[in-house]
Amino acid sequence: MKVLYFEQKITLKDDYPQPKSGEALVRVRLAGICGTDLEMIRGYMDYTGVLGHEFVGVVEKSNNYDLVGKRVVGEINAGCGRCTYCSSGLERHCPQRTVLGIYKRDGAFAQYLSLPEKNLHTIPDSISDEEAVFIEPLAAAFEIEEQIRIQENQKIAIVGDGRLAQLIVRVLKIKNKNITCFGRHQNKLHMLQKMQIAAKMGISKDDEHTFDVVVEATGNESGFSDAIKLAKPRGTIILKSTLASKGNLDFAPAIINEITMVGSRCGPFRPAIEALASGVVKVNDMVSAVYPIEEFEKAFEEAKKPTNIKILLRP
Amino acid sequence: MKVLYFEQKITLKDDYPQPKSGEALVRVRLAGICGTDLEMIRGYMDYTGVLGHEFVGVVEKSNNYDLVGKRVVGEINAGCGRCTYCSSGLERHCPQRTVLGIYKRDGAFAQYLSLPEKNLHTIPDSISDEEAVFIEPLAAAFEIEEQIRIQENQKIAIVGDGRLAQLIVRVLKIKNKNITCFGRHQNKLHMLQKMQIAAKMGISKDDEHTFDVVVEATGNESGFSDAIKLAKPRGTIILKSTLASKGNLDFAPAIINEITMVGSRCGPFRPAIEALASGVVKVNDMVSAVYPIEEFEKAFEEAKKPTNIKILLRP
Repeated sequence: MKVLYFEQKITLKDDYPQPKSGEALVRVRLAGICGTDLEMIRGYMDYTGVLGHEFVGVVEKSNNYDLVGKRVVGEINAGCGRCTYCSSGLERHCPQRTVLGIYKRDGAFAQYLSLPEKNLHTIPDSISDEEAVFIEPLAAAFEIEEQIRIQENQKIAIVGDGRLAQLIVRVLKIKNKNITCFGRHQNKLHMLQKMQIAAKMGISKDDEHTFDVVVEATGNESGFSDAIKLAKPRGTIILKSTLASKGNLDFAPAIINEITMVGSRCGPFRPAIEALASGVVKVNDMVSAVYPIEEFEKAFEEAKKPTNIKILLRP
Repeated sequence: MKVLYFEQKITLKDDYPQPKSGEALVRVRLAGICGTDLEMIRGYMDYTGVLGHEFVGVVEKSNNYDLVGKRVVGEINAGCGRCTYCSSGLERHCPQRTVLGIYKRDGAFAQYLSLPEKNLHTIPDSISDEEAVFIEPLAAAFEIEEQIRIQENQKIAIVGDGRLAQLIVRVLKIKNKNITCFGRHQNKLHMLQKMQIAAKMGISKDDEHTFDVVVEATGNESGFSDAIKLAKPRGTIILKSTLASKGNLDFAPAIINEITMVGSRCGPFRPAIEALASGVVKVNDMVSAVYPIEEFEKAFEEAKKPTNIKILLRP
């Protein structure tokens, strides 16, 4: 079967996953290209294997007969099942974990993948494949509320207007109507404005040090200093993009202003599935294009273009 | 009168403060040299003026007659008195603030200084001058508990063994008996061991990612990466030293492990005064030497030596 294998560069290979005990075999129907995939291609994580971690598929083989034939999405962190993190529901922090398409586990840019059965969530018919593929990154957006309390009266800034920023806006606006998004792309800012979100190019003097909560979701290196500029003293910055956290940073201002900075990664699937099923969160306008897996080169090229939002692969 | 004036280098000058309305004139009895002073001499903050912000003195002139003749210490941030920060007791975050010996306000390495009367705290006779001069940095240690809840069952690491780290240990050990201090100097670690604190040179494999709370108080650039190494997933790092927060940092691991990083600066004076008055915190072993202000060159040289803890100046 076809897989996109990464070893310094991506090649289309023929390979097949070998599900271990407790794992299901899933036929992938759609997979999404994420900023992390693009970073990994540039060498982040030193990963070798099949890429991809956002997917929707159908369970083809499983010892859990209730799962067979079901349409599923999957949590990407597979824990040891025994440590204190795993036993408190935080498998995503298990020190022994493997991570789908990211760390020691072949991923979703493939016709088939395997994951522990307990990682899978069946999804209702009301969610289309094109929506379901957003559940993993949408869960990452819901993670913010697992970590800090979002309040109605807070002033919130999102730095970035891309894939993840778009999802974060859609999640935070459920509880807060006072969101400003700082981006770089007119088309993406326009999408946000259509949702009644204040969306601007660039930070003005009046914006500086006025936000209670700032979410850094740019995927580029200027994101951190922009977030520091926006947060008010004693404010909170949620750090979402790993790339924005490297290089010649100065966070002396964050100490002087006593900013709380919260690293934030994968999140809970349940609220993401419910939000799509109920229509509270809509993602239909976010798919820019769908490519067959064979056209992966074109797909990755398009995913890098700032004019596009989400590019999907059909294996 | 004599002052230590900083303009690219320190010189002993003759100058006299002009107290504004609402300010008291204080005769300085003792002043402490702090890591921030040493950083400022290297150019941090672009400051020009009289250095010094840790002091104990006697009020010489004030419109508040209750203050005159009293022995005092002083909060170093002077706010505008009108903004939302000032009105909620957070003058130390007032955007218009001046800061004693740090920003737009002449400091305490002088025979006299002026500060707003409301910044001054009288101190009981049970606290000696040599102890009182520690109240400002001790308040910075108490700030941690203003920001996060220290619990009995948490595993706490302090990175650093110098001036500020020593005070932080003394404060946190009031509520928590499970503190490990990671330092570089045998004499300083020995001081901590005498207080029944686990104190080690270097981080071993077994220490990595095992601490609920890590306080970075090294004053050097390796402090941040050591703190990241020690914090467990979803743990908290308190960032105390601005110097440790510059340069080629990578906090991608902090995002992956969803660490909360809290910038922490000046703190509340009241608990610091009470802790010294009651003897809950002892600092007597921390004074390495006292120099007359005229011998400032020797004093600063000694303050830089890692074998010394606190160097005081007598104006």
